[in-house]
Amino acid sequence: MSIDPSRLGPMANAIRALSMDAVQAANSGHPGMPMGMADVATVLFSQFLKFDPAQPRWSDRDRFVLSAGHGSMLIYSLLHLTGYASPSLEDIRKFRQIDSVCAGHPENFLIDGVECTTGPLGQGFAMAVGMALAERHLNATFGDDLVDHRTWVVAGDGCLMEGLNHEAVGLAGTLKLGRLNVLWDDNKITIDGDTSLSTTEDVLGRYAASGWHTTSCDGHDFADVARALAEAAADPRPSLVACRTVIGKGAPNKQGGHNVHGSPLGADEIAAAREYLGWSAAPFEIPADILADWRSLGAKGAEARAAWEARAAAAGDKGRELARRMAGELPADTGFAAYAAEIAASQPKVATRKSSEMALEALTVGVPEMVGGSADLTGSNNTKTKATGPLTAADYAGRYVYYGIREFGMAAAMNGMALHGGVIPYGGTFLVFADYARNAIRMSALQRARVIYVLTHDSIGLGEDGPTHQPVEHVMSLRMIPGLNVFRPADAIETAEAWELALQAKDRPSALILTRQNLPAVRADTAMKSARGAYRLKAAEAARQVVLLATGSEVELALKVAQDLEGKGIGADVVSMPSWELFDAQDAAYRADILPAGTLKVSIEAGVTLGWQKYVGDGITVGLDRFGASAPAEVLFEHFGFSVEKIVPRITARLG
Amino acid sequence: MSIDPSRLGPMANAIRALSMDAVQAANSGHPGMPMGMADVATVLFSQFLKFDPAQPRWSDRDRFVLSAGHGSMLIYSLLHLTGYASPSLEDIRKFRQIDSVCAGHPENFLIDGVECTTGPLGQGFAMAVGMALAERHLNATFGDDLVDHRTWVVAGDGCLMEGLNHEAVGLAGTLKLGRLNVLWDDNKITIDGDTSLSTTEDVLGRYAASGWHTTSCDGHDFADVARALAEAAADPRPSLVACRTVIGKGAPNKQGGHNVHGSPLGADEIAAAREYLGWSAAPFEIPADILADWRSLGAKGAEARAAWEARAAAAGDKGRELARRMAGELPADTGFAAYAAEIAASQPKVATRKSSEMALEALTVGVPEMVGGSADLTGSNNTKTKATGPLTAADYAGRYVYYGIREFGMAAAMNGMALHGGVIPYGGTFLVFADYARNAIRMSALQRARVIYVLTHDSIGLGEDGPTHQPVEHVMSLRMIPGLNVFRPADAIETAEAWELALQAKDRPSALILTRQNLPAVRADTAMKSARGAYRLKAAEAARQVVLLATGSEVELALKVAQDLEGKGIGADVVSMPSWELFDAQDAAYRADILPAGTLKVSIEAGVTLGWQKYVGDGITVGLDRFGASAPAEVLFEHFGFSVEKIVPRITARLG
Repeated sequence: MSIDPSRLGPMANAIRALSMDAVQAANSGHPGMPMGMADVATVLFSQFLKFDPAQPRWSDRDRFVLSAGHGSMLIYSLLHLTGYASPSLEDIRKFRQIDSVCAGHPENFLIDGVECTTGPLGQGFAMAVGMALAERHLNATFGDDLVDHRTWVVAGDGCLMEGLNHEAVGLAGTLKLGRLNVLWDDNKITIDGDTSLSTTEDVLGRYAASGWHTTSCDGHDFADVARALAEAAADPRPSLVACRTVIGKGAPNKQGGHNVHGSPLGADEIAAAREYLGWSAAPFEIPADILADWRSLGAKGAEARAAWEARAAAAGDKGRELARRMAGELPADTGFAAYAAEIAASQPKVATRKSSEMALEALTVGVPEMVGGSADLTGSNNTKTKATGPLTAADYAGRYVYYGIREFGMAAAMNGMALHGGVIPYGGTFLVFADYARNAIRMSALQRARVIYVLTHDSIGLGEDGPTHQPVEHVMSLRMIPGLNVFRPADAIETAEAWELALQAKDRPSALILTRQNLPAVRADTAMKSARGAYRLKAAEAARQVVLLATGSEVELALKVAQDLEGKGIGADVVSMPSWELFDAQDAAYRADILPAGTLKVSIEAGVTLGWQKYVGDGITVGLDRFGASAPAEVLFEHFGFSVEKIVPRITARLG
Repeated sequence: MSIDPSRLGPMANAIRALSMDAVQAANSGHPGMPMGMADVATVLFSQFLKFDPAQPRWSDRDRFVLSAGHGSMLIYSLLHLTGYASPSLEDIRKFRQIDSVCAGHPENFLIDGVECTTGPLGQGFAMAVGMALAERHLNATFGDDLVDHRTWVVAGDGCLMEGLNHEAVGLAGTLKLGRLNVLWDDNKITIDGDTSLSTTEDVLGRYAASGWHTTSCDGHDFADVARALAEAAADPRPSLVACRTVIGKGAPNKQGGHNVHGSPLGADEIAAAREYLGWSAAPFEIPADILADWRSLGAKGAEARAAWEARAAAAGDKGRELARRMAGELPADTGFAAYAAEIAASQPKVATRKSSEMALEALTVGVPEMVGGSADLTGSNNTKTKATGPLTAADYAGRYVYYGIREFGMAAAMNGMALHGGVIPYGGTFLVFADYARNAIRMSALQRARVIYVLTHDSIGLGEDGPTHQPVEHVMSLRMIPGLNVFRPADAIETAEAWELALQAKDRPSALILTRQNLPAVRADTAMKSARGAYRLKAAEAARQVVLLATGSEVELALKVAQDLEGKGIGADVVSMPSWELFDAQDAAYRADILPAGTLKVSIEAGVTLGWQKYVGDGITVGLDRFGASAPAEVLFEHFGFSVEKIVPRITARLG
């Protein structure tokens, strides 16, 4: 059924009323965007968006991404009005309070209808690119009957001005993601004032230069909005619709100015707005006829969902396989066990970036939902396998994305892919350039998205490229991000274990920190010891006085230091510590056994020492608290004190 | 004098020969770019660039930025060939070795003629925008006689594909920086292969959409390059010149392919290249006539420099003021002392973002070279003062830049401004979005650039905007960056001290971490105690058992905790610790006095605890090791355990 056009105005005003009332009640929030985009959103939800409020996780729903997340009352209003179970009116009344799911910015882990957490500007848009990419990939794999939906985005000037936008636009244009439709809230206002203060860009020209379809509409003319959205939906290219709007539309004295962006309207202006809009209902009250109009919208989606379910059931194994992938469940056998056994036997001396590739060769066969890629460092990150052919505009069934020189865009797209579901994205860059993507890595963790970062060239061990390319603070800085599993494996076995653990961690991202240079095997068993985060790799022979803690490439050095100490009659454990997060999750007894009291603890890691005091107490930290230098790796390790000759005297001096 | 056009070919081949020989000797490096851009660079240096090899720091020189820093042999060759004192031929022979200034990527702190450190893609370009901006600002301040130069950039596909480029292009276009001319090495190759793998962008179209002048040339046709560069120099807009080149030009079997990008050519191909180029000189040998041609180029610049010096001398005070600013020396009185005295007397209870503004009102009067700005959060970062009028295309004499929603672009531009000299840039964003700019902050530190970051809304204390906007790991992560001074002041006095210390730190960047919420004054003296990094704010009254360490907004809480403990007869020091870096630089006796042995150390900071173990040992860390939530600030502090009621029992339990 379709809505009588004369009803759209009152429906849009319901969004405005809820938004201004909720912001006022919270005495905090952003009324400008929801009020400005209310008309556009009403057209989108009433005539274009495929959704079933009763089944918010239905896999073939359209994705709606509010990239301008500060306008959270827009999506809360829409979800409530259309009849999603959450948020309730009570939640909206408690907007921005600690016991409400209606947080200041929409959070995917609080409300099912929120596809991704937005607020950090530009990222919603870039995640939507990932969602649209996942859709096309699954469509190519499972067919139109099972996967056939769109991704709709509401974005503001901030989302478009961020550098990340250039990466997202370029990626979407190159991959010809025609199912991606972006509605730009073109209100010519940013926080500092008129957009002309800081930009003179011809936005549509820029998008056209990247192969996008572009059009404009009057964002307060329902018919014109519908015309533009239909045009966008019909065009085979990704679309940008410039919706010319008035920020805070409906607040008669404040609309159109930057002060309506991020502050409550105030009681007087709200009263004036009610008058202006002809809205006489009490705060948080939606007239029954208007609510009925909104609630009627889900019927079409419910019908489509029921038809889809019938098709999915009829599709048999194919339907079940899609359901498995969308549920995020791994295949019974990822391929890890057989590969680990092989590696334990062969004990290759290879760089961990290389053993990562070897593990991937097995896992990408066993786990068909893995979709890899690299930010233009494929041959250095070793991320491409035989099983993962190029995913291109000509072949969406491929499983390897050439992300280009777009670290942030890659990370955000991977977040979108993981949140869309049905794929497990992994992508590579140099560890030092994880900086470029850092907030998206944080957002992986906040959103509980299974994204796997392959971060190679992990220390001064990369050698000649010098300090711009040598991570020093990066491993520790990544450990600071709550909810991110950081692995720095010491050899091929630990690398394989890290991959398996990353895949198994359904609700969190992982970062694999890998070397450029070759490392010898330090283990020959397949006991999945990395699951403990840290474990005793070598027990002291003489009476234990020292416990050496090391990660990655420095485990080999720790073994040599221990050997030297044992030669002097000093017993020394070597603990390999690939993941601090997993170690911290062990019980106290295990941790105490690994880090026994009364021993001298010594950490060895080719990065900043700050942080290691957590485990070594007043012991010794061997690390690098300065930028590196340009020289061959072995020269640098020696130069910066990573040698038996330099470390052992520091230990014996302390032992006295 | 001008070079005979027939000489340009051999001159360019000298670059090719040095580049391929140096990479081969190092057995590591990037020959593709220097060989591909040798012809363009030869035209630039012989006909356009204003430089005097004898005076590499001459303030009115043109700036040459090799944004594609991996092609470092291009700039090393150019500097050596034109007769700069550094690098020597010996340095080039030892390319990428630990005792050579010819590092893998060009580093500004090793060689005077290297204007900035490049390698992290996109940043050289964005720093050049800052240099061009500084030039126009100083030109508007000191006139054409004293400041009148250009910024020339060589950039590759990577620099253009990075998101940062969008920000840099937008900023330069809006500010109409016509003295900025970018030479794009349009070779259609990236590391992964042909650029079409990852981009289909009409690059010139994008630049035109941002108000740039664009043109193209055949990068191997000297006359055509000269025509394009002349056109770029003449146009009042910033210019992009697409130089169509063949990567690795001159290596007959490898040129044009992606394998020539980042590996030595090998002895056979080098032999073939010598044949192909007609280059018969031995490795690292430059025929005398060709070297003479190169060495002749500096004469014009030397003449211009001498004329400039005469004008500068004639300009009297104006010349001396420019010299002071370019030398990076502060005025005798920054305005700090008077302001600090005033604040010590008035003891305002304001947010530190507000007291930062108050300090800035004084300092921007006292220090006219300060140029402020914000990434579209002027009213939130409180970065604008009365003395700093808008710096716009219409008024380059202004001192406040509306950077737009471009955190990374702002940070990189500020690096360029600081490295250009003559200005001290400061700029604001929310602390959480320092992530977006993180690698540029790192580059501030690596390059030893006096850039001051104003990072507000520094914890859950920002309240309702929720976890996307609440920094948790950020303060500690910034402390990880070597060479960055991080300040988290506790009140208006400490904030003023942080500003003064940041200004005084001539060769390093600072980050000021500031609250959204009000804080009471904790001090009434002007003793510049922050210079010690940490100091005893309150001494124990009862016998000292506890030392409370806190920063910023948690110092107030630490004082309350101490008061409660004293009420229980437990003596407790309170140490305010605004800067770890400065504290670590104190002598051992001072540090031992502040952190006396035999006491229970307790840290209180509303962020991750990892790292505090450095000071508290096996004491207590009060912090937040998870993401925050959306609610009013006071609710959140209570909810997450930042209260006397929650902290004191943890301390008394430990004391037994």
